[in-house]
Amino acid sequence: MPDATLLESFPTPSPSPFVIEHISEEFTSVCPKTGHPDFGHVTLRYQPAAGGVCVELKSLKMYYQSFRNEGIYYEAVTNTIRDQLVAAVRPAWLQIITDWKGRGGIRSTIRADFGPVPAHYLGR
Amino acid sequence: MPDATLLESFPTPSPSPFVIEHISEEFTSVCPKTGHPDFGHVTLRYQPAAGGVCVELKSLKMYYQSFRNEGIYYEAVTNTIRDQLVAAVRPAWLQIITDWKGRGGIRSTIRADFGPVPAHYLGR
Amino acid sequence: MPDATLLESFPTPSPSPFVIEHISEEFTSVCPKTGHPDFGHVTLRYQPAAGGVCVELKSLKMYYQSFRNEGIYYEAVTNTIRDQLVAAVRPAWLQIITDWKGRGGIRSTIRADFGPVPAHYLGR
Amino acid sequence: MPDATLLESFPTPSPSPFVIEHISEEFTSVCPKTGHPDFGHVTLRYQPAAGGVCVELKSLKMYYQSFRNEGIYYEAVTNTIRDQLVAAVRPAWLQIITDWKGRGGIRSTIRADFGPVPAHYLGR
Amino acid sequence: MPDATLLESFPTPSPSPFVIEHISEEFTSVCPKTGHPDFGHVTLRYQPAAGGVCVELKSLKMYYQSFRNEGIYYEAVTNTIRDQLVAAVRPAWLQIITDWKGRGGIRSTIRADFGPVPAHYLGR
Amino acid sequence: MPDATLLESFPTPSPSPFVIEHISEEFTSVCPKTGHPDFGHVTLRYQPAAGGVCVELKSLKMYYQSFRNEGIYYEAVTNTIRDQLVAAVRPAWLQIITDWKGRGGIRSTIRADFGPVPAHYLGR
Amino acid sequence: MPDATLLESFPTPSPSPFVIEHISEEFTSVCPKTGHPDFGHVTLRYQPAAGGVCVELKSLKMYYQSFRNEGIYYEAVTNTIRDQLVAAVRPAWLQIITDWKGRGGIRSTIRADFGPVPAHYLGR
Amino acid sequence: MPDATLLESFPTPSPSPFVIEHISEEFTSVCPKTGHPDFGHVTLRYQPAAGGVCVELKSLKMYYQSFRNEGIYYEAVTNTIRDQLVAAVRPAWLQIITDWKGRGGIRSTIRADFGPVPAHYLGR
Amino acid sequence: MPDATLLESFPTPSPSPFVIEHISEEFTSVCPKTGHPDFGHVTLRYQPAAGGVCVELKSLKMYYQSFRNEGIYYEAVTNTIRDQLVAAVRPAWLQIITDWKGRGGIRSTIRADFGPVPAHYLGR
Amino acid sequence: MPDATLLESFPTPSPSPFVIEHISEEFTSVCPKTGHPDFGHVTLRYQPAAGGVCVELKSLKMYYQSFRNEGIYYEAVTNTIRDQLVAAVRPAWLQIITDWKGRGGIRSTIRADFGPVPAHYLGR
Repeated sequence: MPDATLLESFPTPSPSPFVIEHISEEFTSVCPKTGHPDFGHVTLRYQPAAGGVCVELKSLKMYYQSFRNEGIYYEAVTNTIRDQLVAAVRPAWLQIITDWKGRGGIRSTIRADFGPVPAHYLGR
Repeated sequence: MPDATLLESFPTPSPSPFVIEHISEEFTSVCPKTGHPDFGHVTLRYQPAAGGVCVELKSLKMYYQSFRNEGIYYEAVTNTIRDQLVAAVRPAWLQIITDWKGRGGIRSTIRADFGPVPAHYLGR
Repeated sequence: MPDATLLESFPTPSPSPFVIEHISEEFTSVCPKTGHPDFGHVTLRYQPAAGGVCVELKSLKMYYQSFRNEGIYYEAVTNTIRDQLVAAVRPAWLQIITDWKGRGGIRSTIRADFGPVPAHYLGR
Repeated sequence: MPDATLLESFPTPSPSPFVIEHISEEFTSVCPKTGHPDFGHVTLRYQPAAGGVCVELKSLKMYYQSFRNEGIYYEAVTNTIRDQLVAAVRPAWLQIITDWKGRGGIRSTIRADFGPVPAHYLGR
Repeated sequence: MPDATLLESFPTPSPSPFVIEHISEEFTSVCPKTGHPDFGHVTLRYQPAAGGVCVELKSLKMYYQSFRNEGIYYEAVTNTIRDQLVAAVRPAWLQIITDWKGRGGIRSTIRADFGPVPAHYLGR
Repeated sequence: MPDATLLESFPTPSPSPFVIEHISEEFTSVCPKTGHPDFGHVTLRYQPAAGGVCVELKSLKMYYQSFRNEGIYYEAVTNTIRDQLVAAVRPAWLQIITDWKGRGGIRSTIRADFGPVPAHYLGR
Repeated sequence: MPDATLLESFPTPSPSPFVIEHISEEFTSVCPKTGHPDFGHVTLRYQPAAGGVCVELKSLKMYYQSFRNEGIYYEAVTNTIRDQLVAAVRPAWLQIITDWKGRGGIRSTIRADFGPVPAHYLGR
Repeated sequence: MPDATLLESFPTPSPSPFVIEHISEEFTSVCPKTGHPDFGHVTLRYQPAAGGVCVELKSLKMYYQSFRNEGIYYEAVTNTIRDQLVAAVRPAWLQIITDWKGRGGIRSTIRADFGPVPAHYLGR
Repeated sequence: MPDATLLESFPTPSPSPFVIEHISEEFTSVCPKTGHPDFGHVTLRYQPAAGGVCVELKSLKMYYQSFRNEGIYYEAVTNTIRDQLVAAVRPAWLQIITDWKGRGGIRSTIRADFGPVPAHYLGR
Repeated sequence: MPDATLLESFPTPSPSPFVIEHISEEFTSVCPKTGHPDFGHVTLRYQPAAGGVCVELKSLKMYYQSFRNEGIYYEAVTNTIRDQLVAAVRPAWLQIITDWKGRGGIRSTIRADFGPVPAHYLGR
């Protein structure tokens, strides 16, 4: 069951704004309708708040693993991760993109944002 | 026969705007003029309305399968899917792109939109 | 001889604007100067007028085949197709791009437009 | 010797503006300093003037071949072709790009324009 | 231990603005939580201040090597390098991007800037 | 020793603005700190001044070869070439980009400009 | 827990030898040492015995899913699948190849065979 | 210091011959001549002896990490790993291939074998 | 001047046969006919003799650098390196392959061997 | 109509056996069943007989063009070309391979030989 208490954080090492991207290629949950496993990639991008915190990487891995046997739609996975990370990290900006392998011949991508993309990050 | 009653939905899991993309690589219908089968890819992109619904993925697959023995032009496939999904989901934005394999040496792509692309999704 | 009477159409299936692309990879005509065959690709893009018509795909193929033994320059092929399709379909926008295989070590591309590219189609 | 009298033209087949691109991958001239042959690609892009003329393709090939034993710098090749084609065709816009294979470990590209790129052609 | 005293510099060879990029593909430090080594790429881009200094390349290599047995988070590596290079070089602009190999199935990228990207460098 | 007297020029063959690019993939100099050879690519782009001159290609090669046994930093190579070519050619615009192979696991790119990129060349 | 009773079969449709390959890209089990999930691809190749049986595809999927929460080494996964499929299908030849994503910076591939590769399949 | 006591093993899960490949992309040691770090990939391939043992993957990672601050030549790394793994696992066949990033402009690959490649693995 | 006294060696770390490959991508010498620099890649492959020696990598780099200002043909470079390395290392087998960048539009590859390729290395 | 009288030849320039390959990417004929044009590539390979003749290239082009408006199956095109070229050239060996673009979603390749492939050409 998605367990946000697994998430740990540490103080941002800099008062300046900077951007972090973590891409997990080993996410799995269960389809609530068919009971079959779903497999996807989860991309997390965020800018810590000034004086705020960063999410600790191993705890992020454990948090993602807590979805392993959960029956949950793609859309709910995406929004749950966004909402629980926003609550845990209180970032200046955060974005979640999930990419799902084919299911019944259909590939899916879901994207949810918290706040606008930082101007200094646009165009990259 | 295209059967929009097959479409099921569930409440959007978040009050925040987010974007969903489903790409089906296994769509087939029948040419109304020659009776030969057509094969294509159907890309659906949409943003649920605030407090609205999402289309359920397995029902989307069944809905696409209902075109299998229908004699229907590419252009009508594209607009029918757009119109029936808009009616079923009442999204903030929706876009259908169909890509068709060669027929008589001609490859085709058709695109139909409902509403403007969300500003936060432009440029991706 | 290019025969625009071969072109058939059917009413656009939607009152909303949408865009259609047909790419033919099997176009051939004859060089009016040398008598040798020319081989090219023809890309047609257009947006039907509101309440207007779409070109029927098999008739488009037959129309393209009517150039098969015609002695005609690349530039005239491109403009003839544009003009005859505009006359037949009366679209909101239409674009023809022809790409020709090497002839005497020279590859050629010709582009002719009718009306400006629709704003919702720019950037794609 | 570059011989612009080889260039032939024919009336543009349309009163509407359109754009033509011819890419020659078989151009050779001679270095005026070392006497060694140079090999390059020549790209010609232009928009005929309204009511103007197009360059005939076979005559363009013959014209390019007239540089074969000419001792001439890359920069002069590029500007000579631009100037002689502008004189022959009097286009609304014309662009020459020459790409030269390595010579002493140095690859070169030269670009010369006549008039601004047409707005409808920008971005392509 | 990260040792900024290793950094050497030399006067910028020009009063004009110019941009320098150094990409190190052999960076390693240690995870402070698990004690396992981390491996990454470090990209440094900067514009020396007018009349300022450039970082000497071999000293930059030695500086990077001083992280080899340091227990330090990705985010702190990125900000520490940015801050210590800014202090050593006092550039007009500086950017650090770190790309980290997979750890527990998660790949990461961190980016920190000092000052805005120079206008003449945008778009490159 | 970098020898700018090796540079020869000839009058620009056209009063119109045009752009020249020469890419040398066989540049080598010596690291002033370690004495080891450095290997790089040098890209030169410029627009001759109206009524000005072009750099002769073989003399450019000889000029680049004059760095072969010179102990000189990457940054100084880049700015020296820019300054000496600007002095020799007095162009409307000039840009030097040097790309250096890995040295101690670090790859480098340096860019120096003289004047703004011509508007007609932007976007290419 | 790996459950070979899930495997179903049907009679081979031909008395002639032929070869079948099934590639699963969605296999997951659990590391018995660390408790973390492992992710891999499983390739099954076999030749049914003359007058023997083929494995039913949906039952193969269910069988693979029965490893989902099993703590088991890569090597044991590979040999268990080989042995249980050999017992279920009694093939003339069978081969299992498992490819595992990085774990601690190490990617792994394990291969186990039953019987020699059929001569008619070598070299493919 | 290379520490073979870190290596753990477990009984081979099958009496049949099979082949295991582990590729580590995060190996680092130190050059005994210059004191600079070396970075490489280590590929291990082996066939357990009948009734023998397999190397445990996490212990292999810890073993590789024990080279981190060791001054040792590429050739000795390769032969040490081969010899210590042969002693720990007593395999039917074993092969070590090390690939090293550029050092002074030179890339290196070293290969050492124990026993001949198994016939059933040749050609793969 | 090629200086074989720069070559250093160390005792082979193993009594077993193994194979070493060093690829230098930064080799330069001078054409004895034109005086222009040549640029190439040098691949060295060898098997140390039982109880013999390996070439030390930094000394190999210095040895290659001693060709930097030598006027010498491609063929002589290749055979000189083979002969001087055979004399220095007395290997069981040795192979030199030189690949040269274009000179007057011609790319060249030269290969020289000492002894037959080891049977265990064939086909790799 | 296929017209073998168009084929011209010239005496083979050598008494030694050698092999010639001509690949035409601009072949078109007409489907005898539907009347629609077919497009394909034709590969001709042959070895002239000792003291025999070679086919003249421009005459081969004219011969291929004589199929342009012929209603003829793929299989008959392939065998007709083989037979008529064998009759015209009397080669030691000859091979025709035709590759046809998609027709109704099916791509086709036909191969016809005259005599065995020369031993010196096998494997190439």
